[in-house]
Amino acid sequence: MKTMKEPIVFFILILTLMITDTTRVHAQEKSTYMRIAKITVDSTMLDAYTTALKEQMNAAIANEKGVLAYTAVHDKQNPSRITIFEIYASVDAYKAHILTEHFKKYKATVANMVKKLELTDVVPIGIQSKLK
Amino acid sequence: MKTMKEPIVFFILILTLMITDTTRVHAQEKSTYMRIAKITVDSTMLDAYTTALKEQMNAAIANEKGVLAYTAVHDKQNPSRITIFEIYASVDAYKAHILTEHFKKYKATVANMVKKLELTDVVPIGIQSKLK
Repeated sequence: MKTMKEPIVFFILILTLMITDTTRVHAQEKSTYMRIAKITVDSTMLDAYTTALKEQMNAAIANEKGVLAYTAVHDKQNPSRITIFEIYASVDAYKAHILTEHFKKYKATVANMVKKLELTDVVPIGIQSKLK
Repeated sequence: MKTMKEPIVFFILILTLMITDTTRVHAQEKSTYMRIAKITVDSTMLDAYTTALKEQMNAAIANEKGVLAYTAVHDKQNPSRITIFEIYASVDAYKAHILTEHFKKYKATVANMVKKLELTDVVPIGIQSKLK
């Protein structure tokens, strides 16, 4: 009995891994919604803005399955120019994101800190990372 | 003698861990060199450009320890506008990168495909990813 059982368990394990992998490829290459947000912040409020942004990003990454990645940077020469590269699992995941309490809190907090906001939908050419 | 020796070994171990940790934080937060490249490509040569870009990115990620991440995308509404978010381990890693054969080949190949190139050095605010 023991000799029969082990190959079956092994087969189920391999099958599960294959299904999981297909789901991941699908999510990353087909339905993924990506966007670049370019934000110019009132330079006198930069610290407060950065704090609010970090709080929003941390809450979204921790609590929303559909928020896949955030890369937020500021220009070296002009720190009040912020770029955020956002990856969501789908357009629906993004729509759900903007209804969350942490996103609404962020928008209310930064309303009079943001001087300019430019949003651009983008499509991946290639994403590769050795980080983490 | 034994009672004296063990606390010293323990102290050296803790000190080693502290030094190692500081080095890692330094490498990730201080020496990392990040840049956003915005490229406008001749729309009639977009496929050829994308092929050359992918070849360059794959070679750099595979062969250069100091090339940490590339995120290359095009605008959804205007595919000839490309954005590449680049992360290198240090400025020196970047300087070594532009001397490699694969980078020189890329530059020569795309020389008459690129209509506009804008490079901006950036500093991280937050980088979080669930991808991979």
